[in-house]
Amino acid sequence: MHRYKLTIEYDGTHYHGWQRQPDKPSIQGRLEEAIRDFCLHEVTVFGSGRTDAGVHALGQVAHVDLPKARPVFTINEALNHFLTDSGIAILNVEEVDEAFHARFSATQRHYVYRILNRRAPPTTQQGYVWHVVPELAVAPMQEAAKRLIGHHDFTSFRSVDCQSDSAEKTLDQVTVVQAGEMIEVQVSARSFLYNQVRIMVGTLARIGFGDWPPEIIDEIFAAKDRTKAGPTAPAGGLYFARVEYG
Amino acid sequence: MHRYKLTIEYDGTHYHGWQRQPDKPSIQGRLEEAIRDFCLHEVTVFGSGRTDAGVHALGQVAHVDLPKARPVFTINEALNHFLTDSGIAILNVEEVDEAFHARFSATQRHYVYRILNRRAPPTTQQGYVWHVVPELAVAPMQEAAKRLIGHHDFTSFRSVDCQSDSAEKTLDQVTVVQAGEMIEVQVSARSFLYNQVRIMVGTLARIGFGDWPPEIIDEIFAAKDRTKAGPTAPAGGLYFARVEYG
Repeated sequence: MHRYKLTIEYDGTHYHGWQRQPDKPSIQGRLEEAIRDFCLHEVTVFGSGRTDAGVHALGQVAHVDLPKARPVFTINEALNHFLTDSGIAILNVEEVDEAFHARFSATQRHYVYRILNRRAPPTTQQGYVWHVVPELAVAPMQEAAKRLIGHHDFTSFRSVDCQSDSAEKTLDQVTVVQAGEMIEVQVSARSFLYNQVRIMVGTLARIGFGDWPPEIIDEIFAAKDRTKAGPTAPAGGLYFARVEYG
Repeated sequence: MHRYKLTIEYDGTHYHGWQRQPDKPSIQGRLEEAIRDFCLHEVTVFGSGRTDAGVHALGQVAHVDLPKARPVFTINEALNHFLTDSGIAILNVEEVDEAFHARFSATQRHYVYRILNRRAPPTTQQGYVWHVVPELAVAPMQEAAKRLIGHHDFTSFRSVDCQSDSAEKTLDQVTVVQAGEMIEVQVSARSFLYNQVRIMVGTLARIGFGDWPPEIIDEIFAAKDRTKAGPTAPAGGLYFARVEYG
């Protein structure tokens, strides 16, 4: 068996998320189909992390074992051929040794969340941003972002459906950047809980609206109660940007 | 009559261009429909310039005369309501005097053209960029861009269907900017000929591929022959960015 690392970009709009599901289009399922079409062999694709329905990726990483070695350029071109018009594109293919695991070897994951902050609805960016009408004050959001960084119990910032044993995580970066009417939240950590990024963004938005002061972050952490944090921001604004290894 | 200036963003993907056409969806037609729904009055919307099928706008400008004065905020919100899910959004409404004409008063028009230069096809940007696979050398494109600036006879750079009496135009700016795998061509002039921006971009691409040297621009100008310039770049990469007045 030969193991390959795939770097993948996708438009999550028309998929029910990363994970393979019976009778519903998924990114994982569509990738496995393309690889099967290419090498005439049933495969399982292992992703570095799941994404929900409607969430996009600029640099998701997955690995797959193929029965026969092939040049990485050939694999890359062939898969993009079998993925034509799927909204999924393979950006890079690399041969890796069997110690490499897309999920377990990952040391850092980066997400980006895009907010379009203006009255008029999005046009070309429909489905690719969260459209927020009330004006967001970025400075308090940046102040709150600093309070999210570090090692915390993120119970208040995970979905009630989250199945992780522990809610303790270390958040390495939360940056809020404004460029005209676009506000981008960039977050980095070794790993995240289910819906964590979207709940953090929903909470930062409440702070940007002026509903809550930045200091509320400390109270939300202490409460260990999902209902104390803000709403889960919509899927379409979220991008799985990049994964680091080793 | 009360004249209003509208600043408009749109996704041109599902429209047959700006200009009203019988039995085909157009931006102008859809806007006139929304205004009629709002003020129960037949109107004509005058745009600052036409855009082709598939071309987008970040800041098209139009004017319209309404029989009754209304607060600009009300007009803006009402039109966006009647434009829900149309891919068209009104960014701003301003009352102007009757000397203002969206087309004839315009002093400068700005376009942006986006090229995605990489092997993998676009996903979230499908229809919003020109996907170019061979690597483009940006320096020769920048050198060629400089040669396009100024007052010239642009006969070689306009569609054979262009109906302007004169092909003499003054191009004020052509800038080629690279940001990772994205190359953006920014052009500014008082006015443009039919397909001029797309033919200039198609020509710059031939130069970026290394097929032609930058100096060929002078020969193409001198030839006054459309067949001497490069291909017309696809509509989806083009954005009508901004219009200046007065």
